[in-house]
Amino acid sequence: MASIPALHIGFVLFPDMTQLDFTGPAQVLTRMGNTTIELVAKSLDPVSTDAGFTLQPTATFAAARMPDILFVPGGFGVVPAMEDAETVAWVRQAGEQAQWVTAVCTGALLLGAAGLLKGYRATTHWASHHSLALFGAEPVHERYVFDRNRVTGGGVTAGIDFGLALVAAIRGDDHAKFVQLSIEYDPQPPFDAGSPDKVEPDILDRYKKMVARMASDRDARTRAVAEKLSAS
Amino acid sequence: MASIPALHIGFVLFPDMTQLDFTGPAQVLTRMGNTTIELVAKSLDPVSTDAGFTLQPTATFAAARMPDILFVPGGFGVVPAMEDAETVAWVRQAGEQAQWVTAVCTGALLLGAAGLLKGYRATTHWASHHSLALFGAEPVHERYVFDRNRVTGGGVTAGIDFGLALVAAIRGDDHAKFVQLSIEYDPQPPFDAGSPDKVEPDILDRYKKMVARMASDRDARTRAVAEKLSAS
Repeated sequence: MASIPALHIGFVLFPDMTQLDFTGPAQVLTRMGNTTIELVAKSLDPVSTDAGFTLQPTATFAAARMPDILFVPGGFGVVPAMEDAETVAWVRQAGEQAQWVTAVCTGALLLGAAGLLKGYRATTHWASHHSLALFGAEPVHERYVFDRNRVTGGGVTAGIDFGLALVAAIRGDDHAKFVQLSIEYDPQPPFDAGSPDKVEPDILDRYKKMVARMASDRDARTRAVAEKLSAS
Repeated sequence: MASIPALHIGFVLFPDMTQLDFTGPAQVLTRMGNTTIELVAKSLDPVSTDAGFTLQPTATFAAARMPDILFVPGGFGVVPAMEDAETVAWVRQAGEQAQWVTAVCTGALLLGAAGLLKGYRATTHWASHHSLALFGAEPVHERYVFDRNRVTGGGVTAGIDFGLALVAAIRGDDHAKFVQLSIEYDPQPPFDAGSPDKVEPDILDRYKKMVARMASDRDARTRAVAEKLSAS
């Protein structure tokens, strides 16, 4: 692997993130060969995730290297992250110089809040898809979306498909297949319930009610972030 | 969720583990509702993973609660873990009293080394499938395998399918579909290369050579662990 170009990946962490948004892509992208990574956050304090365990940042925004690949995960914590000037400023700075500017799940909204999706086709978690347009992105219903150097994936597990597609774009199809074989990615979901147009309506309704209960102010706060960005 | 029975999940961590073996199932299983978790290891030192970042244990073997669900991940580090008496002893003790005894990827070999798969149907990562029989397990080529309270999954990403199937077994199909929708698990791999019978032969060959180079003594050390177990 020594003969392939080195790539530095900066994974952004923030409190109450969805950990699989990060850990799925991290598993795939770090098998590209000749990568270095940093887990970048506001401080070096452990970062809470939605799965009940923490992740340990390795660099603060103040000290982190500028990445070749910028990656942003999502989760309920993305709203406070979008509202945090320091987080948004680092994402913007990193994104303006990165070779690849990427996100999975609602991480796309943080890219949006940093002004990085204006005029770009993009996707995000199905339940937040309507928010992409607030940031001037063109919402696309695909598992992952490439537009120039912006690459975005759908909700959570889309990060594995996203990761393999990005490995293919950077290192070629054969290496992506090699990685896919190594992680035995031959999915066999026990149900066909992974998208809102496939699941039974009562389960979809229950999910929407749960989100409304857990994040009732999410849309209003996202709009406020977008309005502030437009005015700046 | 307060009316459903509480479940405590003990996730075993060991150095050089494959992090997605753990983080995939953790994402799914912690959405069952009314779960508590511990990340259990020999010490509270950060645990290295194959993806270049560490995980932080929350309990030592000496102090951990006995779990309702025991979960063991795999990775190249599973061989030293199988050779470690303290790790094996805790896995055995936890497994003998748990409601569910589970593993993904080569974590099944650690269950085997603890004597927990003798006479049980099981699976593991495709590249280690031949080792299951050393521990008296009956190797099965399926994405995940239930046999009484033993549940094992194939390599790495099989942990997501495994997790949803276990949620269905414990909380019912509708809740598993709810979790599947929440993580948008509607996989669309960019290639059909996730198993040895699907990938091109030259890529399979390259993978086997990489494993032989990185873990040339893996089979011999696994056999030695199994022989010691048989003799005990």
